[in-house]
Amino acid sequence: MVKPGDSVVVITQDERIEGMYLEKPALLKQDTIIIKLSSGYNIGIDKDKVKSIRVVKEYVKPRSKNKEIKQDSKLPNVSVLSTGGTISSKVDYNTGGVIADYSAEDFLEMCPELSNVANLKAKKVMGMMTENITYDEISKIAIEVAKELEKADGVVVTMGTDMLGYIAAALSFCLDVNKPVIITAAQKSIDRGSSDSFFNLISSVNAAANFNGSGVYVCMHGSSSDDYCNLIKGVKVRKMHTSRRDAFRSINEKPVAQIYGEGEIKVVNDSFEKRGMGKTSVKNKFEKKVGLVYIYPEINVELFDVYMDYKGIILMGTGLGHVPQTIYPGIKKLIDKGVFVGMTSQCLYSRVSSTVYSGLREIKALGVVYLEDQLPETALMKLSWLLGNGKDVSLMTSDLKGEMNDRIEYDTFLI
Amino acid sequence: MVKPGDSVVVITQDERIEGMYLEKPALLKQDTIIIKLSSGYNIGIDKDKVKSIRVVKEYVKPRSKNKEIKQDSKLPNVSVLSTGGTISSKVDYNTGGVIADYSAEDFLEMCPELSNVANLKAKKVMGMMTENITYDEISKIAIEVAKELEKADGVVVTMGTDMLGYIAAALSFCLDVNKPVIITAAQKSIDRGSSDSFFNLISSVNAAANFNGSGVYVCMHGSSSDDYCNLIKGVKVRKMHTSRRDAFRSINEKPVAQIYGEGEIKVVNDSFEKRGMGKTSVKNKFEKKVGLVYIYPEINVELFDVYMDYKGIILMGTGLGHVPQTIYPGIKKLIDKGVFVGMTSQCLYSRVSSTVYSGLREIKALGVVYLEDQLPETALMKLSWLLGNGKDVSLMTSDLKGEMNDRIEYDTFLI
Repeated sequence: MVKPGDSVVVITQDERIEGMYLEKPALLKQDTIIIKLSSGYNIGIDKDKVKSIRVVKEYVKPRSKNKEIKQDSKLPNVSVLSTGGTISSKVDYNTGGVIADYSAEDFLEMCPELSNVANLKAKKVMGMMTENITYDEISKIAIEVAKELEKADGVVVTMGTDMLGYIAAALSFCLDVNKPVIITAAQKSIDRGSSDSFFNLISSVNAAANFNGSGVYVCMHGSSSDDYCNLIKGVKVRKMHTSRRDAFRSINEKPVAQIYGEGEIKVVNDSFEKRGMGKTSVKNKFEKKVGLVYIYPEINVELFDVYMDYKGIILMGTGLGHVPQTIYPGIKKLIDKGVFVGMTSQCLYSRVSSTVYSGLREIKALGVVYLEDQLPETALMKLSWLLGNGKDVSLMTSDLKGEMNDRIEYDTFLI
Repeated sequence: MVKPGDSVVVITQDERIEGMYLEKPALLKQDTIIIKLSSGYNIGIDKDKVKSIRVVKEYVKPRSKNKEIKQDSKLPNVSVLSTGGTISSKVDYNTGGVIADYSAEDFLEMCPELSNVANLKAKKVMGMMTENITYDEISKIAIEVAKELEKADGVVVTMGTDMLGYIAAALSFCLDVNKPVIITAAQKSIDRGSSDSFFNLISSVNAAANFNGSGVYVCMHGSSSDDYCNLIKGVKVRKMHTSRRDAFRSINEKPVAQIYGEGEIKVVNDSFEKRGMGKTSVKNKFEKKVGLVYIYPEINVELFDVYMDYKGIILMGTGLGHVPQTIYPGIKKLIDKGVFVGMTSQCLYSRVSSTVYSGLREIKALGVVYLEDQLPETALMKLSWLLGNGKDVSLMTSDLKGEMNDRIEYDTFLI
């Protein structure tokens, strides 16, 4: 019987298709089979049309090996924690599926240069795509990071790219640390020739070992070549492109540093907390009843009723922080109920302001809190974290981890 | 008695405040007065603390003048329609309010150079800030534009900046035209020294008069200086900064042209419909039961129930178009009910794709339609327009007005 991962030849009424037999996605209709072509693309074929399927080569699951990791007492100690994502998707890519299953140990084996940079410890924390990660997983990652930081000089966390920005922000609030926590990922899986995985990994291990900052940063390609990675504060990072390796951008401030692989670390923006002594503390609770609401023309006021049992929402308003007048009553109802309502801008760049127009002053008078230059996604994570840990929501307008700044440099637009 | 617009001196327990007495925003608590300072900022003062208010200079409403507009038969004819927004906010700025009230006629008086570029006709269509504009107003603007195009060589529409992108997209679908319709606006009101109004206006009149394209375009500052404006397709434009004059950006393709004030028009990207002969047709109905939903970690599946009586929603998914697995049932319920569900990306740049990951294939299998490189806001307007005019929603994956392209040039990221 044909099994997922087998190389097959399928004969249909019209054609002959060679490729790898894949597991059928759960929600696809029953009478379809999926074949991954050598081009990397998958096609679905109606079972009705299939005349025969012949197994050319059976799939053999790769053996798990016990790896000896080289240790050098002169090098810093870095722990690499894997949580899933495209960077972890090799093994499943072989079977055609994409459920993340590739672990931190495998990275070390595939990228031996890493052991020139640091003494490495690897641990698989979970194997998930970020879009499915919940607050519970973020809490777990925070605990694992803190545990590793007891001994390591820095920690690298690998994950998927989709919700990386949210998770980086959430971890920034969870972790009071005196060492760097470097989050990295890949836009193309590690087994592809053009993968960005290795350069991101080696730059991240370099940053974890040698960067003179503490806190949570994201380390991803800074250009479309393998020349350097940008190190960006976890509270200021956003995925701005669906597929480019340099998709991750620092919004409203410059990246803190450029990391040249296992080489130089060039500080670009000195506004980061320095690496220091002291203990690590973790506050990793989250309130789940928070939401992010995008504003658009004639948005219906009734949509806001659904948030009546929420603890808080973040609006992505227009421009400096407008919403249509017709939804003022909906917002007022929420605020009267005790729901926190914060304002950010769907422009993403620069800050909201409640002073310029009378409409803005009216919205502020309803009790909406203007969140300055905080990213919508970061504001959501901060709100969930504040509420979850019993902190006062008035801290939404205080800078806790570099998420809010008085001044935005002019040359940071669309960099 | 003190009236809005009066220059006053307010004496409180603690200080002496000079400025302009403003109308109190409707929702502000009763016992506050608002004074606009000469710095341009407004302050609220508790009535309890006010010892005296003295009127220094009474506000006199500017007289409406009948203006003679110069005509030159050798010049093209351009109609300027004003709809409100910051570019129209001078008169109310004087009284301190910001309800748009300044009309197209006033632009011509304040910017006499405009008559060197074209024979101008001016008309005030409405006086609103864009965040309050509904589909009904968009329909009205479409009709007025079509009416003017019967005689004019091009039309300029001035409006606010906040929802300009949405309105430009909506008008693009409404109007089948063979002449250019140029939308412009200002980030700073026309009576400020640093206003971008005049340069945007003169560039827009130049484009309406002389640009060799047809259809709806946005003409706004292309840099932070008054050197040129970018002409951007109405379906590809987005406000990317809350305050900069060059906030409007062409997403996923280059602007079609650079407009050098009343001077040169330099075509940058030739992918536009050319100016031609033929009649103007307007299809200006919209379906109001459409929504835009932003995806974030652990978004609650129950939120989707609120869209059960909607005709369609556009998701702003993560990355290539993911959503958490936990909301698949909510989406499926909507689709089973006949609600159209389209997928765009919150990354904004590049396209969604349903083929790369099994999660994406599963979401597509639910019946979610992947909308390629269409902007979320444009997709929402297109959906509303298709449904409103009885057209098939399968057109969501056809390119109607340049909103969807097979190829994205590599050097268009963050330009």
